[in-house]
Amino acid sequence: MTSPVTILGICGSLRKASFNRMALRAAQSLTPPDSKLEIFDLHEIPMFNQDDESNPPAAVTEFKKRIRAADAILFSTPEYNYSIPGVLKNAIDWASRPYGDNSWSGKPAAVMSAAPGLFGGIRAHYVLLQSFVFLNMNAMTQPEFAMGKANEKFDAQGNLTDEASRTLMTQMMANLVDWTLRLRGSLAER
Amino acid sequence: MTSPVTILGICGSLRKASFNRMALRAAQSLTPPDSKLEIFDLHEIPMFNQDDESNPPAAVTEFKKRIRAADAILFSTPEYNYSIPGVLKNAIDWASRPYGDNSWSGKPAAVMSAAPGLFGGIRAHYVLLQSFVFLNMNAMTQPEFAMGKANEKFDAQGNLTDEASRTLMTQMMANLVDWTLRLRGSLAER
Amino acid sequence: MTSPVTILGICGSLRKASFNRMALRAAQSLTPPDSKLEIFDLHEIPMFNQDDESNPPAAVTEFKKRIRAADAILFSTPEYNYSIPGVLKNAIDWASRPYGDNSWSGKPAAVMSAAPGLFGGIRAHYVLLQSFVFLNMNAMTQPEFAMGKANEKFDAQGNLTDEASRTLMTQMMANLVDWTLRLRGSLAER
Amino acid sequence: MTSPVTILGICGSLRKASFNRMALRAAQSLTPPDSKLEIFDLHEIPMFNQDDESNPPAAVTEFKKRIRAADAILFSTPEYNYSIPGVLKNAIDWASRPYGDNSWSGKPAAVMSAAPGLFGGIRAHYVLLQSFVFLNMNAMTQPEFAMGKANEKFDAQGNLTDEASRTLMTQMMANLVDWTLRLRGSLAER
Repeated sequence: MTSPVTILGICGSLRKASFNRMALRAAQSLTPPDSKLEIFDLHEIPMFNQDDESNPPAAVTEFKKRIRAADAILFSTPEYNYSIPGVLKNAIDWASRPYGDNSWSGKPAAVMSAAPGLFGGIRAHYVLLQSFVFLNMNAMTQPEFAMGKANEKFDAQGNLTDEASRTLMTQMMANLVDWTLRLRGSLAER
Repeated sequence: MTSPVTILGICGSLRKASFNRMALRAAQSLTPPDSKLEIFDLHEIPMFNQDDESNPPAAVTEFKKRIRAADAILFSTPEYNYSIPGVLKNAIDWASRPYGDNSWSGKPAAVMSAAPGLFGGIRAHYVLLQSFVFLNMNAMTQPEFAMGKANEKFDAQGNLTDEASRTLMTQMMANLVDWTLRLRGSLAER
Repeated sequence: MTSPVTILGICGSLRKASFNRMALRAAQSLTPPDSKLEIFDLHEIPMFNQDDESNPPAAVTEFKKRIRAADAILFSTPEYNYSIPGVLKNAIDWASRPYGDNSWSGKPAAVMSAAPGLFGGIRAHYVLLQSFVFLNMNAMTQPEFAMGKANEKFDAQGNLTDEASRTLMTQMMANLVDWTLRLRGSLAER
Repeated sequence: MTSPVTILGICGSLRKASFNRMALRAAQSLTPPDSKLEIFDLHEIPMFNQDDESNPPAAVTEFKKRIRAADAILFSTPEYNYSIPGVLKNAIDWASRPYGDNSWSGKPAAVMSAAPGLFGGIRAHYVLLQSFVFLNMNAMTQPEFAMGKANEKFDAQGNLTDEASRTLMTQMMANLVDWTLRLRGSLAER
């Protein structure tokens, strides 16, 4: 038997009708039983200034606590200018500091993206992967979830109605739980 | 005869003693005669929210105006987590929006970086290059300026004292002016 | 009046029915008048070994001569394993050596890709862009041509029949000629 | 108790005096007891042609067999033109094909690099990481081993004499064995 896995979901966009926030909500309902996906909202995270890193704002302290408490991280991000949004990178920067207090270290992680365009935000994935190396995060590689034509795949209430997307997302969430347990279980083994 | 070139310098870090801000100041004094390097400060740029893009804060409006008025852009950036800081990406995101009103389009650009580490922030350069494709910016490729051991290369007043760095920076600024004139002159030709 | 531009087209795949070779042939017929696109075949280029770089095989010598004689380069490449094919990278490596004899230096360049998948090989573009920095090539950024569902866009004789693709390719070839003239003209200006 | 781990080492350069081949030999002697590092030589791998993928040359068949038999992969690569050598990418391409017969799938992997330059070939690492996503390989992220000034770190017999490099390499090999066991052990758990 395995213990439940708690995943922290982080949306890279601040806009109200964000497809990526809708995607995270869909993922909550498609997470395997015994595991759960919680969502952390980035609205209160200010711009990072290294001068303040030893005395961070309360929202950052809370953010870092939530990351540490999580067993895995799920980023859901739009692609802005062929990369991840500054908003998301800024939150990553805060939680990686100060030196020696990187909250991301050792966390299993997955990336998903949603966008109106055909490519579904895929370029943002690999930019994140490069940061994961420094952050010491262990990225799950398959399946990749980059949902194009996102504007056609949710209903008016923000529910994910596209069946192929729901199937792939279900697989992704199952794999993320598996990936997390693989990494955790093996630690126990040694 | 060629007309003077105005370059807008943007520092990717907000901290007071930023090596990249010192590097921009050094670059000001090493810019070829007839041309000039102005520095725009990102402290007043808030987090991007697409819901506000049609009615941006005054600092963003001013930022976009300064970008448009410039003949070329010089980014000076630290490397955070093997990428550019969220602070810098966020400013880029604001100025690229709303759709159809991308202030960066057509601008010649160069990237420099400074960092205490041996690699001088080099990983940040290529992340920017990928964004330049979407932003429709024309990156100057040589010389690459990634100053490692930056903490040993400025004096207590923040002056760049390392001679090799000054020589390379002088070359970079001359090349950026050349690159800008090449792109401008050719426009006139057609 | 402008002088004609000679572009060297290089296909990243060796297979007979390569979509990217078909795409290069289509581009030949869509190149602006007065300019022309020649195609260099990589079949005779062996694996690069630095021990042989000072005494390269005849095919490499010919390749380097053709690159130098060209005004611009057009790469047409499939995406293999989220990057460019080894075959293409190997040819690039040969022509960049030995040190001080980089045939690519200063060449304007464009990248196109074709693939059966939805994303059309887009991931290969940015891998090439990073190499262009070292190679000192000046990449044209817009429009990006990454043709997905390539298997539906050519007829049995290998002719590009998809109208939207033909229109975009025509624009790309016109922009590549413009880009080449901009860079050349401005050189003349200074 | 854990079973021994067999790692397959692949050198990205063909030249006789390759620093990366010397590095692989050093890694052999620094591999933890009970585990071993074997080296596969790429000299016999020809250029990939998809037309031949169903009937590959004997060297490729052998290569794929060796990859499958290995518990983990260690790439040791120079950086050519800010990316991995075509020679290495070509070998990766062969072993990933034909479709449905990707020999790399599921393999734990690590990347090291050695180069005379200051940056030690670091840019090659992230290009490989992006390919690992498609190849379904699980990259170990820490420590990163990119040995600069490689020309000063081996003796005339090709032995790695630099103590700091030996220490880091020892750590890397230990971590790669750990990483492999973590991934394997967890498989057993579920």
